[in-house]
Amino acid sequence: MDLKAYLATRQKEVDRALDRFLPKASTKPATIHKAMRYSLFAGGKRLRPILCLAATEACGGKIATALPLACALECIHTYSLVHDDLPSMDNDDFRRGRATCHKVFGDSIAILAGDALLTIAFEIATNATPTRRYNLRGIMSELAVAAGSCKLIAGQVADLEAEGRQTDRAQLRYIHENKTAAILATSVRFGAMSANATAKQLGAMTKFGRALGLAFQVIDDILDVTQTSEKLGKSAGKDVAAKKATYPAVVGLDQSRAEARKLTRQAHDSLSGFGTKAELLHALANYLLEREY
Amino acid sequence: MDLKAYLATRQKEVDRALDRFLPKASTKPATIHKAMRYSLFAGGKRLRPILCLAATEACGGKIATALPLACALECIHTYSLVHDDLPSMDNDDFRRGRATCHKVFGDSIAILAGDALLTIAFEIATNATPTRRYNLRGIMSELAVAAGSCKLIAGQVADLEAEGRQTDRAQLRYIHENKTAAILATSVRFGAMSANATAKQLGAMTKFGRALGLAFQVIDDILDVTQTSEKLGKSAGKDVAAKKATYPAVVGLDQSRAEARKLTRQAHDSLSGFGTKAELLHALANYLLEREY
Repeated sequence: MDLKAYLATRQKEVDRALDRFLPKASTKPATIHKAMRYSLFAGGKRLRPILCLAATEACGGKIATALPLACALECIHTYSLVHDDLPSMDNDDFRRGRATCHKVFGDSIAILAGDALLTIAFEIATNATPTRRYNLRGIMSELAVAAGSCKLIAGQVADLEAEGRQTDRAQLRYIHENKTAAILATSVRFGAMSANATAKQLGAMTKFGRALGLAFQVIDDILDVTQTSEKLGKSAGKDVAAKKATYPAVVGLDQSRAEARKLTRQAHDSLSGFGTKAELLHALANYLLEREY
Repeated sequence: MDLKAYLATRQKEVDRALDRFLPKASTKPATIHKAMRYSLFAGGKRLRPILCLAATEACGGKIATALPLACALECIHTYSLVHDDLPSMDNDDFRRGRATCHKVFGDSIAILAGDALLTIAFEIATNATPTRRYNLRGIMSELAVAAGSCKLIAGQVADLEAEGRQTDRAQLRYIHENKTAAILATSVRFGAMSANATAKQLGAMTKFGRALGLAFQVIDDILDVTQTSEKLGKSAGKDVAAKKATYPAVVGLDQSRAEARKLTRQAHDSLSGFGTKAELLHALANYLLEREY
């Protein structure tokens, strides 16, 4: 299987769907829709949507059925980046190799564009197709919980509060689990749910998403230390400069790499029940987790 | 009918329900839940929830059935205030007579608290009881649209963009319709929908909510000019200082008062089909629109 071609195809499908779901850039007031689109179409990898779509395929579902939830997840991810980059948060000027939303549109429009992307995620999610096992109420509720104050936002808060402070392994795990792994787990869960997966399949996907999410974040932490800004497309070394709680800072580079390998193995192992149907998910995990770290 | 006693009772019911729906202040991470609760329990009038509940009663529905949507609307309203007060937005230090969220918790937590209140609104809304005519999909979608980039956020953006610029009556109307009237209309619509209202009833409620919302905002504009900060519980004269687009600024005080009276009449007239069942809504409209302006 040619993974690069697969990713390119899926990215295009997701982009087309997002383009359909978003108001046109000219829709009044144009400023907000331009800002939303600026950040949403900034060359993101579409990791969460593609995981959602690959998970639905592994469970025997159809791409088209899972697309609205895949797009909702990308809107939530993008909103969190836009707010995260604000001067009063991480104060980042670059993201994916170009100026962040507030650098182009100003802080107030960036706040509102983030708000609007978060809001439209729920509008898009109402287009989900419920199945025999999973109704719209449960789907909408899970989306709100995953993005809410006990998951995604909890991770953000703990991350901010850990800055410049002594952090232990448990706190670090808490941050990564909530800030990154929760939404990745929801991504594959939504794919599975869109395919009316059994409880066992859903459980396996949840484990896969969590392990993959944690591994991904540990590797991101490592890359911030070991790579150049040019290669990352965002400011490297920012974590160290901001005294962020990261794996290399807490357990050192060697231990971090060992942890990443362990989590990667867990991710692959959790898919054992799917056999060859999970080939794509294995390949995606390899692609994400075998970056040079 | 003793309106003050009625309002006090309903406020308590809404407060109790919000308290149930929100994570406890001690829930980890405590900072975010304290900040959410600080702004949500800051002595707000609960106007939107109470309108929702009164509308459901007028359509023969039960309070308990409409409470989740009433609470969701209050969370959205509070989020919009928290973000609106931020330094990069309206930069307000006081709200409802006490320090704004970012003055107490800092800008980053205030941004996240607003995000979390917006997100939890959708979680709470999934507790709505669908009726024969109105399903959960339609309800969730309407909530997202009302709070989204073509309504609530559109009003915010247009409001920001009008600052310090020449504004005409049509633009002013656009701001008020989207910033205030849209959510008020959704409030009474959700009350009606919770009662399985007929299309005719829902249409009348929509007209009522819009007229009431516009009248309310025109009067708010007038009060900013004519009242003291002490009486308002927020900084008076801010609109003029910030060169905001307001009715008094665009059409003068006399014309603004005439407009408020006209809209108030429209609000009352739109309820004619409900007869005595709308007594409470008439009383609420009087209460809101007969402030000294």
